[in-house]
Amino acid sequence: MADDLDLGSYIRDVADWPQPGVTFKDITPLLADPAALAATIDRLAGHFIGRGITKVVGIEARGFVVAAPVAYRLDAGFVPARKPGKLPWGTESEAYDLEYGTDELEIHVDAVTPGEKVLVVDDVLATGGTASAAIRLVQAVGGDVVGLGVIIELGFLGGAAKLGDVDLVSLLTYD
Amino acid sequence: MADDLDLGSYIRDVADWPQPGVTFKDITPLLADPAALAATIDRLAGHFIGRGITKVVGIEARGFVVAAPVAYRLDAGFVPARKPGKLPWGTESEAYDLEYGTDELEIHVDAVTPGEKVLVVDDVLATGGTASAAIRLVQAVGGDVVGLGVIIELGFLGGAAKLGDVDLVSLLTYD
Repeated sequence: MADDLDLGSYIRDVADWPQPGVTFKDITPLLADPAALAATIDRLAGHFIGRGITKVVGIEARGFVVAAPVAYRLDAGFVPARKPGKLPWGTESEAYDLEYGTDELEIHVDAVTPGEKVLVVDDVLATGGTASAAIRLVQAVGGDVVGLGVIIELGFLGGAAKLGDVDLVSLLTYD
Repeated sequence: MADDLDLGSYIRDVADWPQPGVTFKDITPLLADPAALAATIDRLAGHFIGRGITKVVGIEARGFVVAAPVAYRLDAGFVPARKPGKLPWGTESEAYDLEYGTDELEIHVDAVTPGEKVLVVDDVLATGGTASAAIRLVQAVGGDVVGLGVIIELGFLGGAAKLGDVDLVSLLTYD
């Protein structure tokens, strides 16, 4: 265990991506490094061990990469929250605002047992639109959302204020 | 450890999805069950422990869910193989055939160190088009593809014949 590993040193700034003027925080160097990946999963899971979490919801697509090992580490199940039309069974759906327009997220109606304690996981918390839609989705199918875990929180975008009463854990915060 | 767990009992057949006449093998009930998820990851990783694998490549998007915990379990790094335009850094790209038309898969050019031993992981091996494109991508950036691990192999589609000299491990085969 590398408890003193500086995860921030594995994040790559990509200028002008996905559009001019935006600097993207690229987590692929972190994911590609065995020690950094292990520290990321262990730190996120460590915050929620002993809280009775039995499902971890990952948000498509980068959120899957973080959520699935956290589920495995917590001895929980994994549930995907996906873009419209990707899930084959009955779904619940939630719209959320983008900078221009709206998008939607779906979850299987039987993904969570009513009252079950759920952790939502994504790679980045930005404006909070996607994360709050995922939280509402889990609540709509009866889950009790205990927390949101992310690698990176872009604090200057104020997403944390949109989450309601959940325990937000972010491993790296950029203000 | 539940070594005798019947993973097949967690697969849900969805009729006429994504199109009429097709029966889809839905892995979400398997992923959502803590014991079945753990057995899936442990069995896939177990086949490849001690083989010197340092990177696990997951194919977007369901492949991420399986590949990331396998990487964590093997103390390896995780690398995403993504649809075009999703990766922010320099990429290598491979086209593959679909039933009608073609699609493409991309990987970061620096995702793998030359000579590094790599495991490719996806949820399902069907015609082998996506998997063989992912294998060629890893080879194009210098990786040594040791194996392909999948939960489900649709044997009747003959995908295994397209993979070349890699060790195919499938936990469930439908002929």
